[in-house]
Order: sequence, then structure tokens, then C-alpha cells
Amino acid sequence: MAAAPRSRCDEPLVALAFLIACLWLCCAAVVADGTPWFWGGGGDPYCLTWRVMVEANNAKAWRTVPPQCVAYVAAYMAWGQYYRDVGAAAGLAAAYAAQIDMNADADDAWVLDVDDTCLSNQPYYQARQFGPYDPAAFKAWASRGACPGIPAVQWLFQTLKRRGFRVFLVTGRDEETLGPSTAANLLATGFSGYDRLIMRGSASRGASSVAFKSAVRKQLVADGYRIRGNVGDQWSDLQGDCVGDRAFKLPNPMYFVP
Amino acid sequence: MAAAPRSRCDEPLVALAFLIACLWLCCAAVVADGTPWFWGGGGDPYCLTWRVMVEANNAKAWRTVPPQCVAYVAAYMAWGQYYRDVGAAAGLAAAYAAQIDMNADADDAWVLDVDDTCLSNQPYYQARQFGPYDPAAFKAWASRGACPGIPAVQWLFQTLKRRGFRVFLVTGRDEETLGPSTAANLLATGFSGYDRLIMRGSASRGASSVAFKSAVRKQLVADGYRIRGNVGDQWSDLQGDCVGDRAFKLPNPMYFVP
Repeated sequence: MAAAPRSRCDEPLVALAFLIACLWLCCAAVVADGTPWFWGGGGDPYCLTWRVMVEANNAKAWRTVPPQCVAYVAAYMAWGQYYRDVGAAAGLAAAYAAQIDMNADADDAWVLDVDDTCLSNQPYYQARQFGPYDPAAFKAWASRGACPGIPAVQWLFQTLKRRGFRVFLVTGRDEETLGPSTAANLLATGFSGYDRLIMRGSASRGASSVAFKSAVRKQLVADGYRIRGNVGDQWSDLQGDCVGDRAFKLPNPMYFVP
Repeated sequence: MAAAPRSRCDEPLVALAFLIACLWLCCAAVVADGTPWFWGGGGDPYCLTWRVMVEANNAKAWRTVPPQCVAYVAAYMAWGQYYRDVGAAAGLAAAYAAQIDMNADADDAWVLDVDDTCLSNQPYYQARQFGPYDPAAFKAWASRGACPGIPAVQWLFQTLKRRGFRVFLVTGRDEETLGPSTAANLLATGFSGYDRLIMRGSASRGASSVAFKSAVRKQLVADGYRIRGNVGDQWSDLQGDCVGDRAFKLPNPMYFVP
């Protein structure tokens, strides 16, 4: 059979088919992924609601990302909106810090969490599709000391130091097993010049995060520091005793620490 | 001049032009409004970040919606995502309430705020383009007693009552001027059978919302009630003394009450 003769009408038809395919792909990306690349993180209404419930601390004690939101969270973390949100929180923290009337005794302090506050575990959780917490696997990841620094918090850290605050990094990571790798990871990502890195020792092993961090902050206050600000990605960083004059909740839809 | 002869090629060209116009309109809606109707509320990345900062209580003491987010907030409130978010928070509150071990003494209580918790002020703020607080205009609006009920909270209210909780409605509205209209508005929207509507009296005029509501909750606890849950659209509803065993923050990007 001979091919049908090609008329000049075909060109717009091909363009039309191409446009329809583009529209279809775009819609499919929205339905499947929650967040097309050009959007920046709004995306799937259900998963957006879930994320806001997490950030407002309504969705307490959730175990893992809902299965239908795994791709949404991956897109949120990787495609810009997460960095926009961290940047906004860091900006608000810096603006607040800038208007604090500093004490001449240099006892004005800030408390910063480490995991997903200073250092990002996004590569680890992304590779595991935000699956449930696996202590051995996480220890293996953290002991590599290869967590990327989170740019907006690196900037906030330097801003706080320049302003004269004493900065304490407080983390639930185990001091004995992860002490050297955590300190090296922090140094390599520009977190140097902090007052102290306070990790979980044998005495506080098994305590909840709220109990451990409350005890640390209480001790800081007993030592004469005034906790002006407190930054963490978990509500358990920001609740309990001596939480500080003001708390800043960084976004984290990847996991929940009770 | 004679019209050019119409060829069969024109039809796909017209369709192509139509599709391009649709795409352009869609993009324009996104850029201008933040939220196209089919999307449900993600929308503009900047305004989404701002809204999440509000809900996580990072953006404290904001005065009005940022000018570039007025259309975004209007779309969020009207096009579904707000109702999705309120519904999710009400669902989480009901799930928590369902697993509470009720006291035989029937002293298990819930505290609900009124404005933008039970009753919606969206029509008022929308008409004013979310402008700054105007006490006289708000009083005129509230005294009409025409606030719509918020469906998910109407459902939560009935669910709590059926389960046997004592429900207290606590509002910063002035009792003397807005008492009758508020009570009538609540009744007309299905909020009946609550234990008490507690409004701001002459003694608490001028106190901050946190101070007024803390004093009310303290009195409830002194009266023997156990505050099991606390629902409000402002962080000032949920902070201070005797906040309850668990707090639920309903979304509100329209205004901030200190």
C-alpha cells in the first residue's frame, strides 16, 4: 500500500496533538506526584492539608508519611518549597534576633537542634522513601558524617554568632557512638564557633526527646544563660521546660520524633 | 477586498489557538491569583510559605495579610482548601476524643473558641479584602448575628456532645454589646446544648486574649473540670495556663489576635 499523501493540514494537527499530550502529561504529573516541577510545592490538596496539620502540631504521633503522600513529600523536599519554608523561618528568627536588646553579661543564648535543623537527612530518608525509623540504618548514615548543611540555617547560625549570641547545639544523637562523626559533620558544613554541642549521654539514654531537651535547657538556665530563641524541626524540640523566649518550627514532613 | 478563501486547514488552527488561550488563561490565573479553581489551594509558593509560617506560629504578631497574598488568601478561604484543612483538624480532634477514657463524674470538658472556630467571619474579611482590624465595623458585622457556622466544627461539636463531653465556648467578644447576637447566631447555626458561653465581661476588658482565656480555663479547672481538648484558630487560644491535654489549631490566614 502506498502512503497517504501528506497535506499541509497535518502541521497544525501535529502541533495540536503535541499540546494535548503536554496538557495530559502535566495533569498526570499533578495527579501522580502532587507537585509538578513548575509549581514549587502546593500540589495535591490532601497531602498539603496533611503537611499543614504536621506543621501546626495537630497531627501528633504520626508514624510515617501517608503512602499516597510519599511522592508529594519527595517533591516538596527536593523541588524548592522546603527550602523556601526553611528560609522564611530562618528569616523570621534572624529578624527577631536583630531586635533583641543584648545583655552586657553575654549570657544571651540560642538553642539549635541538629538533625534537619543544622544538618539535612533528606538524602537518607529520600532513599528509603520516607519509610519507618530504622535505628541501625540511621546510625550507619549519621556515622558517615556526610549530612549536607541546610543553607538557611548555616546563614542563621552565622548571623546569631555575629550578633554575639552564645549558640548551643542540642541533639538526641548518642554521644558515645555518634559524637566524633557529628562534630566533624558540623565542622565540615560551616557550623564552627558554637558554645557547646550537647548530645545524649548514658544518663539520658531512653528518656523522651522532650524530657532530655528540657533537662538540657534547664541546666543552661541554671548556668545563667537566657535562652532567647530556640530552633528545631520537631515540636518536641520546642515544648517542655525553659523553651526560650521564642520558638521557631522548621518544616519537617519526613518523620516525627515524640 | 474579497475575503481570503477559507480552507479546511483553518479548523485545527482555530482549535490550536483556543488551546493556547486556555493554557495562557490558566497560567495567568496561577500568577495573578495563586490558586486556580482546579487546584484547591496550593498555589503561589511565596504565599503558601507565608501561610505555613502563620500556622506553625513562626509569623507571630503579623498585622495584615501581605498585599501580594490577598488574592491567594481569598482563594484559599473560598475554593476548598480551607475547608479541607478545618475538616482534617476536626477529624483529628474527634479521633482523639473517641479514645479518651471518660470520667464517671462527667467532668471531661472541651473548650472551643467562637470566631472562626464555630462561626465564620470569612464573608466580613473577604468583603474588606482582609484589611486591618476595625473594631466598629467588626462589631456591626457581629451584632447582625449572621456568621455562617463552620461545617466541620458543627460536626465536631455534635460529636463531642454525643460522646458526653461538657463543651465550653470561650470568646473574646464583649458580653455586654455582643452577648445576645452571639448566642442567637450560635443557636441558629446548630450550636446548642453547650455548657456555657463565656464572653469577655467588664472585668477582663483590656486584658490580652491569652490572659483572658487563661483565667477562664483556670476557673474551669478550679471548678473541677478536666480540659481534655482545646480548639481555636489563634495560637493565643491555645497558649497560657491550663491549655488542656491537647490543642487543635484551626487554620486562619485572615487575621492575627495577639
